[in-house]
Amino acid sequence: MLPKRTLMGPGPSDVYPQVLAAMARPTIGHLDPAFIGFMDGLNELLRYALKTSNSVTLPISAPGSAGMECCLVNLLEPGEEIVIASNGVFAGRMVEIARRCGAVPVCVEFEWGTPVDPDKVEEVLKAHPDAVALAFVHSETSTGVRSDAAALCQLAQNYNCLSIVDAVTSLGGIELRVDDWGIDVIYSGTQKCLSAPPGLSPVSFNEAAMAKVAKRKTPPQSWFLDMNLLTGYWGGGAKRAYHHTAPINSLYALDEALRILKDEGIENSWQRHASNHRKLRTGIEDMGLEFCVEPDYRLPQLNAIKVPEGTDEAAVRSFLLNEYNLEIGAGLGPLAGKIWRIGLMGASSTEKHVDLCLEALQAALSDQ
Amino acid sequence: MLPKRTLMGPGPSDVYPQVLAAMARPTIGHLDPAFIGFMDGLNELLRYALKTSNSVTLPISAPGSAGMECCLVNLLEPGEEIVIASNGVFAGRMVEIARRCGAVPVCVEFEWGTPVDPDKVEEVLKAHPDAVALAFVHSETSTGVRSDAAALCQLAQNYNCLSIVDAVTSLGGIELRVDDWGIDVIYSGTQKCLSAPPGLSPVSFNEAAMAKVAKRKTPPQSWFLDMNLLTGYWGGGAKRAYHHTAPINSLYALDEALRILKDEGIENSWQRHASNHRKLRTGIEDMGLEFCVEPDYRLPQLNAIKVPEGTDEAAVRSFLLNEYNLEIGAGLGPLAGKIWRIGLMGASSTEKHVDLCLEALQAALSDQ
Repeated sequence: MLPKRTLMGPGPSDVYPQVLAAMARPTIGHLDPAFIGFMDGLNELLRYALKTSNSVTLPISAPGSAGMECCLVNLLEPGEEIVIASNGVFAGRMVEIARRCGAVPVCVEFEWGTPVDPDKVEEVLKAHPDAVALAFVHSETSTGVRSDAAALCQLAQNYNCLSIVDAVTSLGGIELRVDDWGIDVIYSGTQKCLSAPPGLSPVSFNEAAMAKVAKRKTPPQSWFLDMNLLTGYWGGGAKRAYHHTAPINSLYALDEALRILKDEGIENSWQRHASNHRKLRTGIEDMGLEFCVEPDYRLPQLNAIKVPEGTDEAAVRSFLLNEYNLEIGAGLGPLAGKIWRIGLMGASSTEKHVDLCLEALQAALSDQ
Repeated sequence: MLPKRTLMGPGPSDVYPQVLAAMARPTIGHLDPAFIGFMDGLNELLRYALKTSNSVTLPISAPGSAGMECCLVNLLEPGEEIVIASNGVFAGRMVEIARRCGAVPVCVEFEWGTPVDPDKVEEVLKAHPDAVALAFVHSETSTGVRSDAAALCQLAQNYNCLSIVDAVTSLGGIELRVDDWGIDVIYSGTQKCLSAPPGLSPVSFNEAAMAKVAKRKTPPQSWFLDMNLLTGYWGGGAKRAYHHTAPINSLYALDEALRILKDEGIENSWQRHASNHRKLRTGIEDMGLEFCVEPDYRLPQLNAIKVPEGTDEAAVRSFLLNEYNLEIGAGLGPLAGKIWRIGLMGASSTEKHVDLCLEALQAALSDQ
């Protein structure tokens, strides 16, 4: 049997017991008429969480990276330009996927640990008037940075581009308003601030995005992720068409996690994440440690902390894991060895989690 | 709360209670060192079930259709010919995916309800000496037909093609020997004879297949399904590289289902499926009903039964669902309205299931 951990890394976060229990409900057939109501209800909960009225709002049957790929393969056709603002691992992944779509990614690079600068993006949009989309990561999980999604989506609109937003770590943890901000396409994950197990990726496409999909000259290169086929199953009501076998039990879990979010109220969830971040910050700074990201751009749910000079960062993580059954994350790419990533996401965003983490970190640093 | 059904359609099948319980175990991090041993153990169980020693044997983090797409996007490059033997829905799907890969599918059509004829396939292979692969469905779930996988893989070898085998409904239910039969690439599903919930697709690539992947001129068009990246995570041991967040709890479920299979012994599982099929056959024939498929090619785990003249097939299925909470499947494509599909898969392949189904069907037909 695997050990029971407290999950305070970059995700998965701790899963609510009710969500695990939901996952173990008896499996039902993916075409069962009783399942239609469930699907409709789940999509409505997703619309609540995303603050959107987009009819095309549904969970992709695979993790967040597949959600990213879904958005790009549906929106991009070979030869089309897409501007991608890159300030971490996940925008880099978008560039790679866009290239595999035969599209032409125009990458705007920002230093890791800093947000996307809308002014720089605007320059690039000006220089690439044929670009069809602007993509960026709202909450960059690899660095703990929040970028200004509302401003970037407004820019996209000004330059006649569709906006594609990575909200994998945002959803449930910080303010996110699909309709108000004019987000055209968004994808997220289940294992961050929703606190369901990993495995699904909620996505939402607005009418402008679906119009672009509808007028494609070629079908999307992925059959599994083809939004026209997916909406035939998810949006078909009683007449829905079989596409693939939906991951029923994972959908139960997501549904339960979204109910918990709705019961709390999404604004309350945002506030809880902010408040536990403040508590962690105080403790971290009292310990003489520093944050990697400037205060204005810090994600409350993903805290990048500088590893002090002379500290063996991997040894600290091992100590936490072995002595406290506590997982925190390492740095990636240029930040490997330089930061720890402490997640306060969903069920892991509580005062108790903060206290445990501070205590464990204190013990680990004393042990060095 | 959704009703609790008895699942005797084309899948999902009933899930073992132990498997549901495993799915509800506490989520662990996908990069946790304790998770490495689990992953290795899971892949070893998959090798047992597939009768292979292929080191590249792992579960794709999405349902069977994504497993199909994974095999095709990795093996095929634009312009390459692939011969696809088509006798039902799923081979048709392969044709569509191959086309989206930019490959040139050469489709060999067979009547739905009949197996793939190796002689006809050989003619086509002769006529297409440049074809790089031969793909077919071992157990065609849409019709209940078994094709001769060993003979077809031998043919592929004779004509210097890689064999790609759809074993979604085969695995655990009928004889399947990846190494002995010379299968180069195989994909399967969890929700059929393994009786885990839907959501994952076990795949296995042998060395010849991986050599073809290694010498690609372009990367596979799917990043999410790129086998070189997937093996970096699944096969990397302690040095594994993060690719996507693995669906931890679904993997727990698959692991538990494979343990149950191994405890029973896979040959015993094949025999159990055969024996319950014989019992169903007797009952079905006693009722005056007929099978759609010739005895030699019938899948014991998926029984296609002709709808008697004048019977409202949908009304019968609704009766079973409403009066018995029993799901059976409808026909697809040219067989829609003409057959029922009765699954005896995994945990749903028991004498009790057969008795329930026969009783319910008798009642439904009397009710007509």
